[in-house]
Amino acid sequence: MARRNAERRAALVDAAIEVLAKEGARGLTFRAVDAEAGVPAGTASNYFANRDDLLTQAGARVYERLQPDEETIARQRAAAPDRETYALLMRETVDRISAFRTGYLALLELRLEATRRPGLRAVLTERVRADVDANVAYHEESGLPGDATAVRLLYLAFNWLIVEQLTLPGVFSEAEREALVTAAVERVVGP
Amino acid sequence: MARRNAERRAALVDAAIEVLAKEGARGLTFRAVDAEAGVPAGTASNYFANRDDLLTQAGARVYERLQPDEETIARQRAAAPDRETYALLMRETVDRISAFRTGYLALLELRLEATRRPGLRAVLTERVRADVDANVAYHEESGLPGDATAVRLLYLAFNWLIVEQLTLPGVFSEAEREALVTAAVERVVGP
Repeated sequence: MARRNAERRAALVDAAIEVLAKEGARGLTFRAVDAEAGVPAGTASNYFANRDDLLTQAGARVYERLQPDEETIARQRAAAPDRETYALLMRETVDRISAFRTGYLALLELRLEATRRPGLRAVLTERVRADVDANVAYHEESGLPGDATAVRLLYLAFNWLIVEQLTLPGVFSEAEREALVTAAVERVVGP
Repeated sequence: MARRNAERRAALVDAAIEVLAKEGARGLTFRAVDAEAGVPAGTASNYFANRDDLLTQAGARVYERLQPDEETIARQRAAAPDRETYALLMRETVDRISAFRTGYLALLELRLEATRRPGLRAVLTERVRADVDANVAYHEESGLPGDATAVRLLYLAFNWLIVEQLTLPGVFSEAEREALVTAAVERVVGP
């Protein structure tokens, strides 16, 4: 029963991500989540204390689903720690994040909603800071070239590249996006 | 009368920007714009063909208001075209854009709304591409160091830096943001 509940909770949080991406933060209601998850009306309200709770859990779940799988991590660790590997790793990361289109759009909706909700802002600030710090730590132990500033600059550039691709895909072509990722690593990391 | 109408139209578009930032794209109704502008209910519907028209004009108006004034341009043109000037120019640009907080948040709302509205997406794509091209052209005629790829990479990194500052201001401190702008120019532009 506990397991069944955990599965249903996860399904409801995943449904909330889809609703956020499709309808925006304003469209996220318990009723919309029930409909998206295909469960009886009133179900979501049994699983979440309130809308803030649902927003927070949706944000955490996006980050969870954006983590690379173990196979990917193992493959990346086995590669030579040079600038070419770094550029390849970054192209893969940008592709993996962009591929979870609704998750990334949901995070953008949550960021905008955070300008109106101090509680959500505090939770997201902590989550994003932890993410940036984890990127720096992962880089340090990888032996890849470049410093913590390079990691932060790439984080900035690639986030907006993903925004561009997901919201206005006609601004840069796929080839231009690839070339920008490679050039960013070459210049920011240095020779 | 024509002048009066043009002024009122501009005031309504400015009110739409505030509504977008405060209430999100879903909250943008003619009624909300009338209330924000402090005009009688029904006014906005006389000035805009439909909601798409209002969204499009709000986006165009944000870009208009983000342009530097002539004094700023003249001062920038008079400076020595070296990397230090470039970094200063970029810090000023990031500050100017962040200072129009509601305008930038409105643009993010419009980008998310564009994922749901192909017409808006087409207009914004053209506007953003023109903006990137204008940045490249401005850079070329300025004589500042670096190439078109550098302009595009800085565009990416600084847009996300502004998103970070406006949505989750606690992630980077003001000093960290300044250091990131300077480091981005140094590394992306090269020696």
